[in-house]
Amino acid sequence: LSNREEARSTPTTVGAIASDALAYTAGRDIELDLELVVADCLGTAAHVRMLAGMPLEPPILTPAEVDQVIRELGAIMEDHRMGRFEIQLADQDIHLAVERRLTERLGDVGMRIHTGRSRNDQVALDLRLYAKDQLLGWIEDMANLTASLLRLARQEEATPMVGRTHMQKAMPSSVGLWASAFAEGLQDDTVVVTTAYELNDRNPLGSAAGYGVPLPIDRGRVTRSLGLRRTIHNVLHAGHTRGKNEAAILQAAGQVMITLSRLSQDLILFSMPEFGYFSLPAEFGTGSSIMPQKNNPDVLELLRARAARVLGHGATVLEILRGSASGYNRDLQEVKQPFLEGIAMTRSSTRILEPIIDGLLVHRDALERAFTAEVFATDHVLDQVARGMPFREAYHRVKAGLDDLSRQDPREAIARKRHEGATAGLDFDAYDRRLEEIRLFVREEREGFEHAVSSLMETDGSKGHHH
Amino acid sequence: LSNREEARSTPTTVGAIASDALAYTAGRDIELDLELVVADCLGTAAHVRMLAGMPLEPPILTPAEVDQVIRELGAIMEDHRMGRFEIQLADQDIHLAVERRLTERLGDVGMRIHTGRSRNDQVALDLRLYAKDQLLGWIEDMANLTASLLRLARQEEATPMVGRTHMQKAMPSSVGLWASAFAEGLQDDTVVVTTAYELNDRNPLGSAAGYGVPLPIDRGRVTRSLGLRRTIHNVLHAGHTRGKNEAAILQAAGQVMITLSRLSQDLILFSMPEFGYFSLPAEFGTGSSIMPQKNNPDVLELLRARAARVLGHGATVLEILRGSASGYNRDLQEVKQPFLEGIAMTRSSTRILEPIIDGLLVHRDALERAFTAEVFATDHVLDQVARGMPFREAYHRVKAGLDDLSRQDPREAIARKRHEGATAGLDFDAYDRRLEEIRLFVREEREGFEHAVSSLMETDGSKGHHH
Amino acid sequence: LSNREEARSTPTTVGAIASDALAYTAGRDIELDLELVVADCLGTAAHVRMLAGMPLEPPILTPAEVDQVIRELGAIMEDHRMGRFEIQLADQDIHLAVERRLTERLGDVGMRIHTGRSRNDQVALDLRLYAKDQLLGWIEDMANLTASLLRLARQEEATPMVGRTHMQKAMPSSVGLWASAFAEGLQDDTVVVTTAYELNDRNPLGSAAGYGVPLPIDRGRVTRSLGLRRTIHNVLHAGHTRGKNEAAILQAAGQVMITLSRLSQDLILFSMPEFGYFSLPAEFGTGSSIMPQKNNPDVLELLRARAARVLGHGATVLEILRGSASGYNRDLQEVKQPFLEGIAMTRSSTRILEPIIDGLLVHRDALERAFTAEVFATDHVLDQVARGMPFREAYHRVKAGLDDLSRQDPREAIARKRHEGATAGLDFDAYDRRLEEIRLFVREEREGFEHAVSSLMETDGSKGHHH
Amino acid sequence: LSNREEARSTPTTVGAIASDALAYTAGRDIELDLELVVADCLGTAAHVRMLAGMPLEPPILTPAEVDQVIRELGAIMEDHRMGRFEIQLADQDIHLAVERRLTERLGDVGMRIHTGRSRNDQVALDLRLYAKDQLLGWIEDMANLTASLLRLARQEEATPMVGRTHMQKAMPSSVGLWASAFAEGLQDDTVVVTTAYELNDRNPLGSAAGYGVPLPIDRGRVTRSLGLRRTIHNVLHAGHTRGKNEAAILQAAGQVMITLSRLSQDLILFSMPEFGYFSLPAEFGTGSSIMPQKNNPDVLELLRARAARVLGHGATVLEILRGSASGYNRDLQEVKQPFLEGIAMTRSSTRILEPIIDGLLVHRDALERAFTAEVFATDHVLDQVARGMPFREAYHRVKAGLDDLSRQDPREAIARKRHEGATAGLDFDAYDRRLEEIRLFVREEREGFEHAVSSLMETDGSKGHHH
Repeated sequence: LSNREEARSTPTTVGAIASDALAYTAGRDIELDLELVVADCLGTAAHVRMLAGMPLEPPILTPAEVDQVIRELGAIMEDHRMGRFEIQLADQDIHLAVERRLTERLGDVGMRIHTGRSRNDQVALDLRLYAKDQLLGWIEDMANLTASLLRLARQEEATPMVGRTHMQKAMPSSVGLWASAFAEGLQDDTVVVTTAYELNDRNPLGSAAGYGVPLPIDRGRVTRSLGLRRTIHNVLHAGHTRGKNEAAILQAAGQVMITLSRLSQDLILFSMPEFGYFSLPAEFGTGSSIMPQKNNPDVLELLRARAARVLGHGATVLEILRGSASGYNRDLQEVKQPFLEGIAMTRSSTRILEPIIDGLLVHRDALERAFTAEVFATDHVLDQVARGMPFREAYHRVKAGLDDLSRQDPREAIARKRHEGATAGLDFDAYDRRLEEIRLFVREEREGFEHAVSSLMETDGSKGHHH
Repeated sequence: LSNREEARSTPTTVGAIASDALAYTAGRDIELDLELVVADCLGTAAHVRMLAGMPLEPPILTPAEVDQVIRELGAIMEDHRMGRFEIQLADQDIHLAVERRLTERLGDVGMRIHTGRSRNDQVALDLRLYAKDQLLGWIEDMANLTASLLRLARQEEATPMVGRTHMQKAMPSSVGLWASAFAEGLQDDTVVVTTAYELNDRNPLGSAAGYGVPLPIDRGRVTRSLGLRRTIHNVLHAGHTRGKNEAAILQAAGQVMITLSRLSQDLILFSMPEFGYFSLPAEFGTGSSIMPQKNNPDVLELLRARAARVLGHGATVLEILRGSASGYNRDLQEVKQPFLEGIAMTRSSTRILEPIIDGLLVHRDALERAFTAEVFATDHVLDQVARGMPFREAYHRVKAGLDDLSRQDPREAIARKRHEGATAGLDFDAYDRRLEEIRLFVREEREGFEHAVSSLMETDGSKGHHH
Repeated sequence: LSNREEARSTPTTVGAIASDALAYTAGRDIELDLELVVADCLGTAAHVRMLAGMPLEPPILTPAEVDQVIRELGAIMEDHRMGRFEIQLADQDIHLAVERRLTERLGDVGMRIHTGRSRNDQVALDLRLYAKDQLLGWIEDMANLTASLLRLARQEEATPMVGRTHMQKAMPSSVGLWASAFAEGLQDDTVVVTTAYELNDRNPLGSAAGYGVPLPIDRGRVTRSLGLRRTIHNVLHAGHTRGKNEAAILQAAGQVMITLSRLSQDLILFSMPEFGYFSLPAEFGTGSSIMPQKNNPDVLELLRARAARVLGHGATVLEILRGSASGYNRDLQEVKQPFLEGIAMTRSSTRILEPIIDGLLVHRDALERAFTAEVFATDHVLDQVARGMPFREAYHRVKAGLDDLSRQDPREAIARKRHEGATAGLDFDAYDRRLEEIRLFVREEREGFEHAVSSLMETDGSKGHHH
Repeated sequence: LSNREEARSTPTTVGAIASDALAYTAGRDIELDLELVVADCLGTAAHVRMLAGMPLEPPILTPAEVDQVIRELGAIMEDHRMGRFEIQLADQDIHLAVERRLTERLGDVGMRIHTGRSRNDQVALDLRLYAKDQLLGWIEDMANLTASLLRLARQEEATPMVGRTHMQKAMPSSVGLWASAFAEGLQDDTVVVTTAYELNDRNPLGSAAGYGVPLPIDRGRVTRSLGLRRTIHNVLHAGHTRGKNEAAILQAAGQVMITLSRLSQDLILFSMPEFGYFSLPAEFGTGSSIMPQKNNPDVLELLRARAARVLGHGATVLEILRGSASGYNRDLQEVKQPFLEGIAMTRSSTRILEPIIDGLLVHRDALERAFTAEVFATDHVLDQVARGMPFREAYHRVKAGLDDLSRQDPREAIARKRHEGATAGLDFDAYDRRLEEIRLFVREEREGFEHAVSSLMETDGSKGHHH
C-alpha cells in the first residue's frame, strides 16, 4: 500500500509559518467554513454599519463606503449560492477570505472593516447566526415528525399492542399509546432545543480578542440589526460562551437522538418476522450483496449508531472546554466539526423518520395474536382489588394460578384504561395545541430574523431595485 | 493478596433467586436508596390519599386508614432522620422496604398501598422529588458563589490584570472583568439548571408499569398534592422520561462544572509563583508527605478532575438510554449512581469555591508588573484607527515596530474601554438584579414545595398536636 | 425534604486545613483505600528491606528493626482480614494510616519508613499490586466462562440456529457456531487483558515525588522482592504511568464488556417468547412488583448497562489525564473510584454469566422452526455457482424467484459448511489448547507472585514457626 | 440564511430505494472509501486466486481469467494513484464500485468474483489491510519523535529544570529527565500499538455474511497470500471483530494522544514568558488578526484538543458496539469515519511534534533562575536522613525552618541523584537499543507485507515486464 504513503516532505514555510504547521492548524476549516459564508457576511454587514455610526471624526467609514461594503458582501453571498466562492489555504478561514475579497475590490475600505473585532468573536457570532437558522429548521423538522406520529397514533388509537417491560410481555397497550409516547417525547425535547435556541440568540460581538476595545463601539446596535435577543454583557464571558453554546446545542441534540434511536430500535424489533407488527415502507430497506432475500432496516440501524456519534460529539466538545484557562484558546477550533456534523446528523435523522412513519404498515392481526393470557394478569389482579381485596393478596393469588389465567379481549382491555394519559385517556387535542404553538414560535422567530436581515442588507442601490 | 480473594461460592438461592443474581442485581441500591427515603414516603403519602379518593365501593382505604399510613410514613421519616431506618437485602430497594414496614405495622392496610402503581413509576417519582429539593439547593449554591465573585469583581474593578489568549499575554484587562466573567457564566448556567428544574417538576406517577391501570386513578391530584407543576401525560412516555430526566440534569451539571473547572484552572495558574497574582487562602492548600515546603491547590485540582467525572457520568447515562427498546428496562437502575454522585459532586464543588473566592488574596503589584509593553500593542493600533488610519494598515505598522512599543499605564488602559461589558463598562447593578431574581425564584419554589408537603403529611393526629 | 439538607456549617479547620477542604479532598478515599491495605503493606515491606540494605552508616534500619516492621505489617494485614483495620479521616489515606500505626507501635522505627518515597509512588505501586492480583483472577474468570461456552458449543454443535444480520434472518447457522464465537471473542480479549497485565507488572517505586532522591536506593531490589517483571526506568515517567496504567486496564475491561454485553443482548432477545430459542435458568430471573406473571432477565439487562458504565469509567480516566502538565497532579486521585469500580463490575459480570450459560435450556424445536425457506436463499445461489453459474447471475435468478424457494433440511445445511471456522469446520481442540495455555499462564504467574510475597514477609520469627 | 436551506424535496426512488434513504445510508462512505481502494483491490486479488484454486469442476475462474482480474485490479490501483478512480452514489461503496468496473471490463468474469464473500467481510478485510499499513507508518512516526526527544534529552542531560508536582515547584530535576520521560512514554505506548497491530494482522475473509459458505474455500490461503499472521477461526466471531478491532486501534491511539497532549501542555506552559524555559521554533507559531504582537502555540493547542477528539472517537466506536445483537448490523458503518479520522489525527499529531522538538530553543539561564531555595527542601531532609535522623523527624525540622533554607547548586543537586532512572542515572543506551528493536520490527513487517503483495499482484504479463 506504499503508494498511498505520503512522502516525508522536507519542511518548507508559507510566509513565516511552516507548511506542515499551516496544514495542521487549518485542519478541515477551509472546507467547514463554507457553511459559514452567509453568516460571516451578515455579521460583517452589521459590524460595518455600527463602525460607521461611531462618534469619531473622521468616521471609520462613510455611508457611501458602507453601501459599497454591503453590496460586495451581497455579491459574495450570491457567489456562494452559485458555488463560486472559495476559501484559500493562505486565507486560513472564512473571515480572512472575506476581508481579502473586500480589500481586493474596495481597497482601503476593506482594510477598515476589521476595526474593533477579532476573528475569535467573529467566528463566535457566525456560529450563532448559523445555529439560529439551523435550530429553527430543526424545531420544524421535529414538529413534522411529531405530526406524523400523532397521525399514526390517532388512526391506531384503538389498535391493541402488547406493552412490554424488560422487552418481555407486560400489559395491554395500544399502537396509539406507543406512537403518541414518542410524539410527547419530541415535544419535551423541543423544550430543551428551544432553551438552547434562546441561549444561542445572543450577540458576542464587541468582545474583540476577549477584552474589549478603547473605541466607542455600540454593541447593542449590532445585536438589534441582526435580530438577536440580547448582547452578551461581559466581553470575557462572551469569549467563554464559545464552545459552551455549541455544547448546549449538542446536548439538546443528544436528547433528541435518544428519542429517535429508541423509536428506531422499536421499529427494528417490531418489524422482525418474529413480531410482524409493522412493515417498513419497502423503499426504505436495502438488500445484501450476497443474500438475495434480504430487506434490511439500514436507515434505522444507522440512526441508532448516529445517535452514538452525536452523543460522542457532545461529550468531546465538553471535554475540550473542561479545565481550559480563561480567554480564547485555539483548542476551540476543534469544536467546529463535531458541532456542524452533530447538527446535520440530528436534522437528517429527524427528517428520514417522517416518511418511514408515514409509510408504516400496521399489521393488526399480528398485534392481536401476541395477546396471550399472561398479558392480562395484572388486569385480573386489579379487578379483584376493585372488588375489595388488598392488592398484595390479589397479586399472590393470581401469581399462584398463572396457568389458569384466561385471555381477555384486548380491545376491551385497552378501552378500560381511561385515566389521564392511558390507552383510553389520551388527549390528542392538547398534543395538537402544543404542536401549533411550536409552529407559531418558529414562524414568528423566522419572520423576525428575515426582517432584520433584509433591512441590514438593504442599500440605496438595492432599494432602487424595488422601484 | 490471596486473602482478599473471595471464595468461589457454591451457588445458593434466596427464595427463587440465586444469591449471586440477587447480589448482582441489587448492586449498590440498598445503600443508594437511603437517599430516597423521604421522597419515597412523600410519594406514597400522595398515592395513598389519591387511592382513598377513588370512587370505588368499598374504598381502597378509609380516611382513618389513610391517617394510619401517613402517620407510619412520618415515623419512617423520623427513623431515617435518626439513622435508624434500614433497607435489607431481601427488600432489594426502598420501595419494598417501606411496603414491608407498613405491612408489618398495619397489616392488611399495608398490602393495599401498592395498588395501581409499580416500583418503576415509584422510583421515577422519588428521583424527581429528590432532584427538586437538590436543584433548589444547587441554584442557591450557585447564587452564593456568584455573589462572592461579584464582590471580588466590584472590589477589584480597577485592578489591572493582563488579559490572555492562547494563555499568552494579549491585552489590558482587569480583575473585575475576570471575576465577573465567571459570575455571568454562572448566571447563564442557571438558565440551563432552571430548565432542568422545570422539566423535572412533573409527576410520572400513574404510569404503573408504563401502561396505566383499569382503575379510576386521579393522577392530577397526586401532582397537586406534591406541589409539582404538571402531570406527564402519556403513561408510556412517563416511563421513557426515566433516565432522560436524570440526563438533562447531568447535562446542566456538566455546563456548571465547565465554568467551575475553568475558574479553578485559572486560580491554579495565577497562584503559581511564576505569576503570583493570587494567593489561595492557606487553609485550602495541602502539603506533601515528602516535600516539607509544599502548599498545593489540591481542592482546585480535584475539582478539575471531578468535572471530568460529572461529564463522564452524563455521557454514561445518555448511552444507557440510547437504542433501548420502549418500556421499562432494568438497565435504568445503573442511572442511579452516576446521577446521585453527579449532583453531589457538582454541589460540593460549587460550595467549596465560595470560601476560596472569599479568602483570595489579590497581589496588585504582581498583577501590574506583568504589564510589559507588548500588552498595549492593540491599543496602539486602535489609537491610530481612531485618528483615521485603516485598521489593517495600523496593524502592520505596529507589528513592524514591536520593539519600540512603549508601556502605558495599565489603569488608564482599562479605564478607556468604556463600551458595554468592557473593563470600564460593567453593569454591576444588572448582575445584582439578576441575582435577586434567582434568589426569589428559589425562595418561592421552596415555599410552595414545603407548603404542599406539610399539607400532605398532616393527619388528624398531627393537627391535634398544634392545639 | 428539608430535614436532609445539611446545615451550611461554619468553616472550621483541622490542623491547618479547612474541614470543608479536608472532606472535599479526602473524597471517598478513606473507604476506597481499604481495598489497598494488603498491597500497601507488601509495598512497604519491600521498601523497608531495601532501605535497610542501602550502603549507609548507620543504616536506615537494622535487620532486627526490619523484622519488627514486617511483623507489624503482617499484623495489620491480619487485622484487615478480620475487618478490624480502619483509616481515619485525619490519616487521609491508607499510606498515612499505616505509617501512623507503625509509628504508634514502633516509635522511631516507624518514622524512618517513608525515607525516599512519597505517597504518590506508593499509591502507584499499591494499585499495580492490587491490579496484578485482580487481573490474574479476572483472566481466570474469563477462562471459566470460555469453558462454559465451549461446553455448550460442543454439545450443540449440530443444533441448527438461524444466523442473522441486521437482526433479520440471514443464513443457516448453529448454536455451536454462536456459542463458540463468544468463546473465541473472550480468547481474543484475553490477549488485550494480558498485555495490560504485562504493562502493569512493573515497579514504579523509587520515583519518590517523581524526581528521584539523593540516596543510594536500589529500585531493582524492590522490583524483584515483589515478584514484578521490571522497574519503570525514568522516575518522572514512572509518575506519568499513574492513570495511564489504570486506563489501559479499563480499556481492556471495555473490550471484555463489549463481548459480554453482546452475548447478553442475544440471550435477552433469543429468550423472548417470540423466539423461544433459549430459557434462562429460572433462578436468574426476577419478578415484578405489580405484574405477577413476569420473569425478567434483569441480570442481563444490568450487565448491558454496566458495560456502558465501564466504558464511561475508561473514558473519564483518559480525560482526566489528557492535557495535564507533567509531574503529579491531584486530579489523579479521581482515577481511583472508576478504576476499582470498573474492575469489580467487569469481574462480577464475567462471573455471573457462567452459571447462566451452564444452566441455559436450549429449545431445539423452536430453533428449527425458525428455518423458513428464505434462510436458504444464499445456499441456493452458491449451489448454482458450484455448478458453474457466475455468482452475480445466480444471485439475481434466486432473487427473482424468492417466492418459490424451497425449505431445506437445516441440519444438512450446516453440515455442508465444512471450511475452516464454519458450522462444520470448528476446531474445538484448538480452543481447548488455547484455554489450557491461558490457565497455565495464570497458574505460573500466581505461583511466582505468591512465592515472592511469602519470602518478602518472612521474618526470623515466622521462620521459627515452621520448625 | 434561507438560501442555504435545502428544499424539502419530494421523495423519489433510485431503483427500489428512496433517494433520501440512499443519501442517509451512503453517508460519507463514497468519500471515505477512497482510502480503501488499494486494500480492496488486494483483498479481491487474494480472494480471486483462492476461488480459482477451489477443487470445483468447472473451476470458478481459470488461471487466465485470474490474470485478467489481477491486471484490471492493478489498473484500478493505478487509476486511483492518478486520482482518476471514482465511486458513484449508485455503487454505494468501494466494493460494488470495483465489482462494477470488473464486470464492465471483463463481463462474466467480473460476475464471479463475489462468490463466497459478502461486503461485510470485505470491508472488514479492507480496514485491516489499511490499518496494517498505517500502523507500521505510525510506529515509525513514534520512533522518529522518540529519537528527537532522546536527542534533546542527551544534549540537556545536565541542564537543571525545576521538577513540579501539582504544577508547583517540587524538587531538582533536569531537562534530560523531562524529555526522556516522554520518550519512555512513547516506547511504552508502542507496546500498546504493537499489540493492536498484532490483533489487526488477521484475516476475517471467508466469513461471508458471518456464517460461512457451502463451498470448499481455503481461508488459510487468502491469509498467506496477503502476508497476514493468521486466520480468524470462527466465522461469526470474524464478523464480531469488526468495530472491536478498530476500537482496539483507537484505544492505542488514545494512549499515544495522552502522551503527546501532556508534552504539548508542558511546552505551552514552559514557553510562556512567565517561565521562559523554552522557545518554540518561530515557524510553528501563528499570529492574531487583531493583536500584532502575538505568536501563539496554535499547533500545541490544537493537538491538545485533537487528543480529546481521538478519545471521543474511541468512546463512540465502543458504544456503537455495546449491546448490539450478534451478526452484522449496519450500525458498524458509523465506525469508519471515527476510525479513519482517529488514525489520521494521531499520525499527524505525532509528526508535527518532531520538528518542534528538533527546533526547540532551551534557555538554560531561565531554567536555573527558577531554582529558588525551597526546591531543595527535600534534599535537605534526605541529607539529614543519610546522617541517621528518622525521615519524619527531619521532615518536620526542615518544615519548621523553611524560611532559612539555603539555595544549593542545581547542577550538583541533579548530579547527586544517581539511582536507576534518576537525573544522573538515565540509561540512554537502553533507550537506543529499544528504539532499534522497534525500527527493526517495522522494517521486517513492512518487507514481509510488500513481498506478499508483490507476489499476489504478479501476473504472467507482469513477470514478462521484468525480462
